[in-house]
Amino acid sequence: MVGAVLELVFTPDRSDAAPLSRQLAVYLRGLIEADRLPAGGKLPATRELAATLGLSRATVSLAYEELVAAGLLTAHVGQGTFVAAPATRTVRLAPTSSVESRNFVWSGLLAVRARALPLPSRLLSGTPEPPRFDFRGGQVDLESLPTSEIRRAFADVIGSRLPALASDKDPRGWPPLRRAIARYLVGRGIACEANEVAVVNGAQQAIDLVARVLLDPGDTVVMEQPGYFGATLAFTAAQAHLVGVRVDEDGLRIGDLARILRARRAKLIYTTPAAQSPTGAVLSAERRRALLALADEHQVPVFEDDYDSELRYEGAPIAALKTLDRAGQVIYAGTFSKVLFPSLRVGYVVAARPLLDKMVLARWNADVGTGTITQAALAALLERGGLERHLRRVRRVYAARLAAMLATLDETMPAGTVWTRPRGGHGIWMTLPPAVDPEALARAAGAAGIAYTRGDVFYADGRGTENVHLSFAALTPDAIRAGIRLLADLVRAHGAGRQRRRSAR
Amino acid sequence: MVGAVLELVFTPDRSDAAPLSRQLAVYLRGLIEADRLPAGGKLPATRELAATLGLSRATVSLAYEELVAAGLLTAHVGQGTFVAAPATRTVRLAPTSSVESRNFVWSGLLAVRARALPLPSRLLSGTPEPPRFDFRGGQVDLESLPTSEIRRAFADVIGSRLPALASDKDPRGWPPLRRAIARYLVGRGIACEANEVAVVNGAQQAIDLVARVLLDPGDTVVMEQPGYFGATLAFTAAQAHLVGVRVDEDGLRIGDLARILRARRAKLIYTTPAAQSPTGAVLSAERRRALLALADEHQVPVFEDDYDSELRYEGAPIAALKTLDRAGQVIYAGTFSKVLFPSLRVGYVVAARPLLDKMVLARWNADVGTGTITQAALAALLERGGLERHLRRVRRVYAARLAAMLATLDETMPAGTVWTRPRGGHGIWMTLPPAVDPEALARAAGAAGIAYTRGDVFYADGRGTENVHLSFAALTPDAIRAGIRLLADLVRAHGAGRQRRRSAR
Repeated sequence: MVGAVLELVFTPDRSDAAPLSRQLAVYLRGLIEADRLPAGGKLPATRELAATLGLSRATVSLAYEELVAAGLLTAHVGQGTFVAAPATRTVRLAPTSSVESRNFVWSGLLAVRARALPLPSRLLSGTPEPPRFDFRGGQVDLESLPTSEIRRAFADVIGSRLPALASDKDPRGWPPLRRAIARYLVGRGIACEANEVAVVNGAQQAIDLVARVLLDPGDTVVMEQPGYFGATLAFTAAQAHLVGVRVDEDGLRIGDLARILRARRAKLIYTTPAAQSPTGAVLSAERRRALLALADEHQVPVFEDDYDSELRYEGAPIAALKTLDRAGQVIYAGTFSKVLFPSLRVGYVVAARPLLDKMVLARWNADVGTGTITQAALAALLERGGLERHLRRVRRVYAARLAAMLATLDETMPAGTVWTRPRGGHGIWMTLPPAVDPEALARAAGAAGIAYTRGDVFYADGRGTENVHLSFAALTPDAIRAGIRLLADLVRAHGAGRQRRRSAR
Repeated sequence: MVGAVLELVFTPDRSDAAPLSRQLAVYLRGLIEADRLPAGGKLPATRELAATLGLSRATVSLAYEELVAAGLLTAHVGQGTFVAAPATRTVRLAPTSSVESRNFVWSGLLAVRARALPLPSRLLSGTPEPPRFDFRGGQVDLESLPTSEIRRAFADVIGSRLPALASDKDPRGWPPLRRAIARYLVGRGIACEANEVAVVNGAQQAIDLVARVLLDPGDTVVMEQPGYFGATLAFTAAQAHLVGVRVDEDGLRIGDLARILRARRAKLIYTTPAAQSPTGAVLSAERRRALLALADEHQVPVFEDDYDSELRYEGAPIAALKTLDRAGQVIYAGTFSKVLFPSLRVGYVVAARPLLDKMVLARWNADVGTGTITQAALAALLERGGLERHLRRVRRVYAARLAAMLATLDETMPAGTVWTRPRGGHGIWMTLPPAVDPEALARAAGAAGIAYTRGDVFYADGRGTENVHLSFAALTPDAIRAGIRLLADLVRAHGAGRQRRRSAR
């Protein structure tokens, strides 16, 4: 069978400077690396292959020997020559994939960072049926969407400015939107010029661009653990070394951070000070100052992901960490995902020009820029106050949902279950009693029509299985009460009085 | 003046749980911390500010008192209230936003690939004044834009589907758009399922994602030279080793490609077969077959950038290279940039699932997905035939512009100047007579109000200074005739009968 494959596609090129044995070895190596010759497969005898290909037996032997030397083949006297097991190869191979009629094998061609591409697939894969109680994150209240204002903003800008939008080429973003964002950020205490703002496709792109311009493989990134999974994914894909800082009710623990920064050179600190993702903790004023002092002492840039700051339901708004940034080392990212909806894909980054300019270059290479129609519509919405009006509306909506969730948790959850009490944001972070088997609970919840985000999604290292993130954004207070009550019953059914069992995962 | 600023942007929120005095204090604090209210600056009298903002005087007094207590304001009896000097403040304040005062040094922190980030800045930087004759690429005829169809498509989808668009999470793209693209591609001879299509932010993102999932630093990419600069930028940023294949009137030269693939293991072949960028050459049928045979023999994926294929003005349409792909090794990318306009930022990629799935994972890490409003509007435009109608219109418009350009070049350009005669696309590729100094010509053209893209932009290695790319898309036939005539005069003035001078660059 192997011989047939070779016969089909190997064409020795006698005009090539490389000797035929070399050509054959290169060809076989490609097949092995592409998993066309499976591990353990026996190659044809040299005589047989030489006859098939019209080559001398010495040529085939030389090619085999070269591949044995490279660890790709193994020779067993009296038995023949075999494709080496992946473990013994110098290049690690991915398993084969099965695509019906298409036989090109991609796995061996993937870049190192692509082979390692992490994905919590349950984040992306929809459930077969929409769950009755959907506590998963990344959602907003669909009833509150300012549909007619959004429709009017799009229609107006298309009607009046399409030629300008169609010919805009500024990779930093549509200038009127950058100006509107600079004005909007005064509300976060940030004074910046429009030329210090770049529009991006949501905070995720800001994270990715910072990874592109700051991180070499192996560089250390310090981030909260639990922490935002999108940051974990982007930094992991950039082959960074992630070091976690624990968090408590005042946000990331400064003692941990100080220890880490003393012990190793970090390239970046990633943090969510306004509403720690996923716990919702607000970084205290004292820790903010200490964080910046440490970052300054060790000359480490700080990425402030201010993703949820607008959704604050009680207490005074807290100015962004960026407002305390004297040196210009805080990279500030915000988004319209939480205020409007995530699939709008518009966010912004404010950073010192030397870095921002590099990010904009990297951004051009990545995808040129953000679609100008959406940018212009958002600028119109901001200028008309539509965003502020919407924010005031959803703050009331979400405050009531948060209250309903906390009250029902208080009422119904069995002893030993603990959860955070955020004053803003989209959700709460719950720790299950040690006796509850998280796997069994997740199965039972799924069967009961309850969807939530499992805690290990927010850890880079598999911890967090005893945690659950519950978003209240997409459910009415009544549904929240019913769903939490049902979940509490399941927690009770799956753990009360039992011995602690650890998940096998 | 301070009062005027406050008047403009402070909007008390009477529905907020926080008292108005608190809201005002937070707002003022933000301005002070952002240095929008400079140290030593006098605040308006409480009565005055109260009247301006429609608040009670007591509310303003309370806000001032809170900020005095926080050390942010100082009150001087009989004189008024002033912004405290930074040294006396309890909260450390951000400096002004002027870039100069920020002292964090970024240059030493940049990643290796960011330090090397290439950018032909003249591509992105606008001229101070719009040129009279703008022959630069990446533009479309603004007069032809189907404004009312586009406006209606956006308004319709927002009005009828906003909740679905706001909650969509499919990182492969809005499913109705993927289905519409799969149907649209039948016109390119491509039979694919919607689940083999991923929506991306233009062809540039498709290129970048392929670089992310296939290329390790040092990997070889074979591409046309001259070739599309966006591909050069993305592959260079991925630290790939670029190897150029020369092009002629039938597209990339197969002999070159065969030699390169024999000499070294290539990870990717990038090509623009429908309209070679920048020459406009169509890859011949014979070369298409030879290209795929070579790619198959060496097990190298082929990236087909089909960016300009819809704009064909004579002769039968040519099926995509992808239609000849038996093994599934061709990655096909298309875009709506050329058909509608580039800053729409929507394109698509068709690839075998093992690769496409990896690209979609990388894409989630990069920026999650393409904005759903724009995707849905495009799907509506496609389904209603609006895109096909627009294409028929612009084909006529551009055919006339191409004809005007070719006729005027024939009439006016001095001997020794040669140019391509494409039957589609957006522009022509011209080679200046050896005696013309490209630098001097560029300066003279700029002074005369003529803008074009210099040929070296399309080479990775600085070659191409004797070339010029002239796009006809954004100029009327009359303007094309006038602009080309003027350019021909300049070519003559800068080279005719002179000794060959080489640019010092």
